[in-house]
Amino acid sequence: MRFLILHGPNLNLLGTREPSLYGTLTLNEINARLQQWARLQQVELQIVQSNHEGALVDAIHAAVAWADGIVINAGAYTHTSLALRDAIAAVKLPTIEVHLSNIHAREAFRRRSLIAPVCRGQVSGLGWLGYQLALEALCEPTSN
Amino acid sequence: MRFLILHGPNLNLLGTREPSLYGTLTLNEINARLQQWARLQQVELQIVQSNHEGALVDAIHAAVAWADGIVINAGAYTHTSLALRDAIAAVKLPTIEVHLSNIHAREAFRRRSLIAPVCRGQVSGLGWLGYQLALEALCEPTSN
Amino acid sequence: MRFLILHGPNLNLLGTREPSLYGTLTLNEINARLQQWARLQQVELQIVQSNHEGALVDAIHAAVAWADGIVINAGAYTHTSLALRDAIAAVKLPTIEVHLSNIHAREAFRRRSLIAPVCRGQVSGLGWLGYQLALEALCEPTSN
Amino acid sequence: MRFLILHGPNLNLLGTREPSLYGTLTLNEINARLQQWARLQQVELQIVQSNHEGALVDAIHAAVAWADGIVINAGAYTHTSLALRDAIAAVKLPTIEVHLSNIHAREAFRRRSLIAPVCRGQVSGLGWLGYQLALEALCEPTSN
Amino acid sequence: MRFLILHGPNLNLLGTREPSLYGTLTLNEINARLQQWARLQQVELQIVQSNHEGALVDAIHAAVAWADGIVINAGAYTHTSLALRDAIAAVKLPTIEVHLSNIHAREAFRRRSLIAPVCRGQVSGLGWLGYQLALEALCEPTSN
Amino acid sequence: MRFLILHGPNLNLLGTREPSLYGTLTLNEINARLQQWARLQQVELQIVQSNHEGALVDAIHAAVAWADGIVINAGAYTHTSLALRDAIAAVKLPTIEVHLSNIHAREAFRRRSLIAPVCRGQVSGLGWLGYQLALEALCEPTSN
Amino acid sequence: MRFLILHGPNLNLLGTREPSLYGTLTLNEINARLQQWARLQQVELQIVQSNHEGALVDAIHAAVAWADGIVINAGAYTHTSLALRDAIAAVKLPTIEVHLSNIHAREAFRRRSLIAPVCRGQVSGLGWLGYQLALEALCEPTSN
Amino acid sequence: MRFLILHGPNLNLLGTREPSLYGTLTLNEINARLQQWARLQQVELQIVQSNHEGALVDAIHAAVAWADGIVINAGAYTHTSLALRDAIAAVKLPTIEVHLSNIHAREAFRRRSLIAPVCRGQVSGLGWLGYQLALEALCEPTSN
Amino acid sequence: MRFLILHGPNLNLLGTREPSLYGTLTLNEINARLQQWARLQQVELQIVQSNHEGALVDAIHAAVAWADGIVINAGAYTHTSLALRDAIAAVKLPTIEVHLSNIHAREAFRRRSLIAPVCRGQVSGLGWLGYQLALEALCEPTSN
Amino acid sequence: MRFLILHGPNLNLLGTREPSLYGTLTLNEINARLQQWARLQQVELQIVQSNHEGALVDAIHAAVAWADGIVINAGAYTHTSLALRDAIAAVKLPTIEVHLSNIHAREAFRRRSLIAPVCRGQVSGLGWLGYQLALEALCEPTSN
Amino acid sequence: MRFLILHGPNLNLLGTREPSLYGTLTLNEINARLQQWARLQQVELQIVQSNHEGALVDAIHAAVAWADGIVINAGAYTHTSLALRDAIAAVKLPTIEVHLSNIHAREAFRRRSLIAPVCRGQVSGLGWLGYQLALEALCEPTSN
Amino acid sequence: MRFLILHGPNLNLLGTREPSLYGTLTLNEINARLQQWARLQQVELQIVQSNHEGALVDAIHAAVAWADGIVINAGAYTHTSLALRDAIAAVKLPTIEVHLSNIHAREAFRRRSLIAPVCRGQVSGLGWLGYQLALEALCEPTSN
Repeated sequence: MRFLILHGPNLNLLGTREPSLYGTLTLNEINARLQQWARLQQVELQIVQSNHEGALVDAIHAAVAWADGIVINAGAYTHTSLALRDAIAAVKLPTIEVHLSNIHAREAFRRRSLIAPVCRGQVSGLGWLGYQLALEALCEPTSN
Repeated sequence: MRFLILHGPNLNLLGTREPSLYGTLTLNEINARLQQWARLQQVELQIVQSNHEGALVDAIHAAVAWADGIVINAGAYTHTSLALRDAIAAVKLPTIEVHLSNIHAREAFRRRSLIAPVCRGQVSGLGWLGYQLALEALCEPTSN
Repeated sequence: MRFLILHGPNLNLLGTREPSLYGTLTLNEINARLQQWARLQQVELQIVQSNHEGALVDAIHAAVAWADGIVINAGAYTHTSLALRDAIAAVKLPTIEVHLSNIHAREAFRRRSLIAPVCRGQVSGLGWLGYQLALEALCEPTSN
Repeated sequence: MRFLILHGPNLNLLGTREPSLYGTLTLNEINARLQQWARLQQVELQIVQSNHEGALVDAIHAAVAWADGIVINAGAYTHTSLALRDAIAAVKLPTIEVHLSNIHAREAFRRRSLIAPVCRGQVSGLGWLGYQLALEALCEPTSN
Repeated sequence: MRFLILHGPNLNLLGTREPSLYGTLTLNEINARLQQWARLQQVELQIVQSNHEGALVDAIHAAVAWADGIVINAGAYTHTSLALRDAIAAVKLPTIEVHLSNIHAREAFRRRSLIAPVCRGQVSGLGWLGYQLALEALCEPTSN
Repeated sequence: MRFLILHGPNLNLLGTREPSLYGTLTLNEINARLQQWARLQQVELQIVQSNHEGALVDAIHAAVAWADGIVINAGAYTHTSLALRDAIAAVKLPTIEVHLSNIHAREAFRRRSLIAPVCRGQVSGLGWLGYQLALEALCEPTSN
Repeated sequence: MRFLILHGPNLNLLGTREPSLYGTLTLNEINARLQQWARLQQVELQIVQSNHEGALVDAIHAAVAWADGIVINAGAYTHTSLALRDAIAAVKLPTIEVHLSNIHAREAFRRRSLIAPVCRGQVSGLGWLGYQLALEALCEPTSN
Repeated sequence: MRFLILHGPNLNLLGTREPSLYGTLTLNEINARLQQWARLQQVELQIVQSNHEGALVDAIHAAVAWADGIVINAGAYTHTSLALRDAIAAVKLPTIEVHLSNIHAREAFRRRSLIAPVCRGQVSGLGWLGYQLALEALCEPTSN
Repeated sequence: MRFLILHGPNLNLLGTREPSLYGTLTLNEINARLQQWARLQQVELQIVQSNHEGALVDAIHAAVAWADGIVINAGAYTHTSLALRDAIAAVKLPTIEVHLSNIHAREAFRRRSLIAPVCRGQVSGLGWLGYQLALEALCEPTSN
Repeated sequence: MRFLILHGPNLNLLGTREPSLYGTLTLNEINARLQQWARLQQVELQIVQSNHEGALVDAIHAAVAWADGIVINAGAYTHTSLALRDAIAAVKLPTIEVHLSNIHAREAFRRRSLIAPVCRGQVSGLGWLGYQLALEALCEPTSN
Repeated sequence: MRFLILHGPNLNLLGTREPSLYGTLTLNEINARLQQWARLQQVELQIVQSNHEGALVDAIHAAVAWADGIVINAGAYTHTSLALRDAIAAVKLPTIEVHLSNIHAREAFRRRSLIAPVCRGQVSGLGWLGYQLALEALCEPTSN
Repeated sequence: MRFLILHGPNLNLLGTREPSLYGTLTLNEINARLQQWARLQQVELQIVQSNHEGALVDAIHAAVAWADGIVINAGAYTHTSLALRDAIAAVKLPTIEVHLSNIHAREAFRRRSLIAPVCRGQVSGLGWLGYQLALEALCEPTSN
């Protein structure tokens, strides 16, 4: 199976940005852990990070051609981007939303995800492990 | 490690209740899968189901004496019970919230979790597997 | 046919509690009238009152095994209990909601019924007779 | 006893209009059933339908001279007409509001009845039978 | 093909009423242009104007017998009339809503159309030409 | 000078309708007092009452041809009729709004007048005298 | 009869402040007209202006000892002062609220009067004449 | 005099639960202080704690038979339980609401008490002493 | 110990103003009772009443120099004065808010206290005794 | 005349994306139809599609140099982009907004267009034909 | 040039009041710095501080006679005083609003300035320097 | 010291875009004035303009390596971009927000800045001079 992992705006700063909220691992370290897990599970990951809403939309469109599912941490665009929501709905790939911190325990505007209604599920507050758990769920199609 | 798994109101009807939303597994079948996983991981699970808000509060209080963490699917009380929220905050055990269906893709009133602000994280929409993923996260204390 | 009649919190005080709002009949007197009507119609009634939300949920679950429908006056839980709503939706028995006083003519918070969206209908403001009218409707399956 | 039955806008289309919501009986068929019931109970019914808010107000005013009560299905005017509310409050006849479908289970704007606060009660979701049940309640003055 | 054109309240004053907002053509002049267009397209138009909400509802009901579609400028009733909405939904004729001025660029209360959810589309802000464009769309059934 | 006095829905019941709120004078008695005042001031009054929103709109349109101003008590339509608002704005006659009771001291929905933003002023809570005071103001064009 | 006329904040600038909204008369000129009217009617006026909320409250308290009623234009305090509201309610003198401009045709925050619910009535938008009309109403105790 | 003291959900954890908010005294220690005070004042206290909403309702009902008043700290049910509100209103015993912390200085949802409108008063933020002060007020019937 | 007691607007009218809400004692009588209590407890009270928001702010500022705490009944300014809130926060003296009537059982706008978030606690609905209870709490620094 | 046609995010997927909502034509097919119409009318079209908000803003800026008007379907950015709104307002070209589906009949967040207040008009729900109708209106400058 | 600097409520406590928010300079020290700057620039400053809303209004009125502009830090009255807003609008002097702390980064109620809509600009969060920057802007009339 | 000046969307049109709101200077002219000021103060400025939200985020990230602070006029993204807010919070450089026009005096949606809570301060309504004043404040680290 092949999956797209999409990191949204400001996630390139991970490890340096408010570590008490987001942890001390850099994005490269997280990606390395996920690739290691992927090798063990014999699945293939393509990982993309961008601060541009349009680039994230483009990446989702491109995934139609090859991916079996998407794991997305849309960062701040989670709360403002209807374009991402429409892109996910349009490509119809099973998509799971991940957030490093527990967005439901933070500012009111972070509790509302515009993309959640078109995703299969959401993992929030479990740090880098959340990405791996989302991948586990995508590999287990009979789980719900 | 020892964990409390708490199932809230109406979850005793699982398998018969709106299977398109909640899946076809009964609660006993889900519990069996989780106990099987627990044996493999050598962790211990105590599993409680109740339709009574007060009984769920009592179970959380009792967990202080023995548990290392809580996985809770509070069902409808997720959205109405400040008493559960206060109980989780009071016992200070790491707690992860699980929902079988993706509550963020349903009616507006199901998108707001009153207990989320005092939980470490939330797994939503990943069916019975969500319980197992939450347990994995509790076993991995360094994940965030 | 067999029906469950469910009286929610504080209805055990009927006749003494604000008679100008709720009438002067006690709950026993109302139940007697309904049983008398039931005997005439040759239907069977089981009548339960509880101040405990969980106990009302349990009673609804139990009704699956024997009842053809439910008449429920959930009292104050009408406005706060999503657990009752989920229970009614789960058992799929035809259910009619009854209120002694006209809840739509009272405080704003009493005008919103959380259980209404999963009930077949609602009778409000017609006193004890409301229960009987709801039973008449349940006996007349072709009425809508 | 003599009662006015008032059918509001679009109810003349009954039987053809969204039968899954409103049933397959035409307005004439419903009126015939009600007149039949009235003959059995020896009460007298005058039945008026209009799509004009002002005409409904006029009919309520005229009822002061002869009627013992009103059963009104104000249709869409239920949610928009303060003029009807003031008319009902002004004539002081006991009035019961009827809705064929369960308005509390539909769009948000249909859950709020502007006339409810000046009516004795409301019957909602019980199809054509709702009119008859409302008449039964008007005939039973001691019910609340 | 035959179409009903419905002009709502105050549109009889066109040409004299706030010409900067609504243009300088009178209603008769607009109707003449539309009839001229209709003759060229060999379609038939019946044009009705009324300041009475009930009369507009009646006209929609009557159209079931002969019309292939409706073009409606409901004027101020656009924002207050659920009765018109129910009428359009009941007759099931393809209906397009027209507004001379751009209602989405005006007071907040004019931005919400109660009838839009039951119409096929809306043309707003294009002056008298909007009626003609709506007719073109009704004649082109394959356009969406 | 010539003025139109417009009485809206339910005002024909004055004197009988909730006298503690609206006073004990009938509409005829109020009209007589106003005509008496008019004779003394040598102004001419035309007085219209209707329960039909459309009829009130028609009367406003007709006033363009002869009146120097309008005094309107739109009753419940004050709070629901944008059509009346548009009519007043369209004819551009100086218009003063009158309410017998103090609408700003009553239910929240009565405090908002949809026609106020297009009227020159409002007199509220001064009983029948309010009509006369509004006429005095219309006769005194230099007052503001 | 003796009346208190109370002018609130910024009314001392009348005539110079936004004349298109408030007219070109100075406060002294308005007061002179009102005193002239008072002499003709043989009533006595005491007129107070202050920019201090507390001073207006003090003046209302003092009026208990001698006044038969109050005419108040509370200016901006109309919309922010619950202390004025409580003062008017406490002294129980018949009080009429006056506004030079039509507050119901202006910014949203000017449409809500905090003192209206404890006043007998309100005159809005009729310029300086509004004060005189309010005095006429206070002199006519039988008007409502 | 005899009083019921009712402690709601999670109060059994007092002393261990967030001591900076709720103090370091255990519930037993608080109860001992109150019993000591009661002996000095020669009043009798019955003290109940429960995490079950229904049990609190039952206790209030039972108090009708013997108590002269109620002091209630309903904990989280303060903000969610209309059933408690109805129970207090039904038994008509003078009831004072107590909160250890100042609920008006905390999260928005804790500032609204559903039971306050049916209580005689509220003491908030004064720690364990608040219970004693409430009892003092119940013993002083002439205080308001 | 020395305390400032601050009475806000309209409290000088106590005893005459709506006695059913506020009791029949005058402000002088309440102050006398409090001074009597103070003498027994050997504490010193300075008591100030003003209808001027600024004067209340000034009094709070002055208290820094001599007082050990403040008891404040800010009357209507409770709900409108952020200046009072900032003054209390700035001086950092322990402050308890008192209301004669139960503000949480009255109009919605009286339920929100702007000063509560910076006060130690609140006593509401216990009449004049509320002041004394607040003083007792200030004398008992270990109560929370 | 020369016009810019702007297609926003996800419109490149047309024909494959939810055809029941958006039709089965691809974007290329729609563009071809519009170019065909343009040739017949002897107008010139430049057509741009982008998923990037900034690119759409750039394209609007560039149009100042050559275009006589803009037809824009901003897709999801319709509801979230104030930058597009400011761009349209800044270039001052006549602009008409087009939506394939009837946005006023869909989710609440799709009913609000942020760009509508700066556009000349809007065509919604008329499929690909909507673009052509908008162009017709731009070619008919005297239509409103 | 001559300017009025207006300091609102509680600013007399500067330096002692929450220094982490408002800095450690006293009001006298800030005023001295501003006077020093003024001497260098050869402009004249009159500086007023008051805790009384009415006194601030009076000072603005008086400035008409001599000042070329106003710099105002209205403190808490920024958020509650429409009287100040009307005063600034009435005198028509260029006015700039200053806040020591960044009000847009604080509690929600501090983010809304009632006076902003009638001021030329606002400087927020730049400490005492904000006053000087505002004066610089007033001296540079061509800056916008 | 070295600072980044960031101009957001549509600011490249300055001088041509609504000059009454934004002034007649072009962006180049403003930048030239700022560079001139910078040379006098011996500070270094890097100036970036982009219509792309992602490009602005990238520029903020890049500034970490060299800049001592940021002055940002985010244009319309001020009100819609949480990504910019997170970027500013992540890099932790002192940042001051500038707006040419007074955003607090314009449409409601322009009054709310999403980035304000993570900025040190805001200068609004002072035209091009606002940039210079913000730079002055960044150079004066002891100002608050």
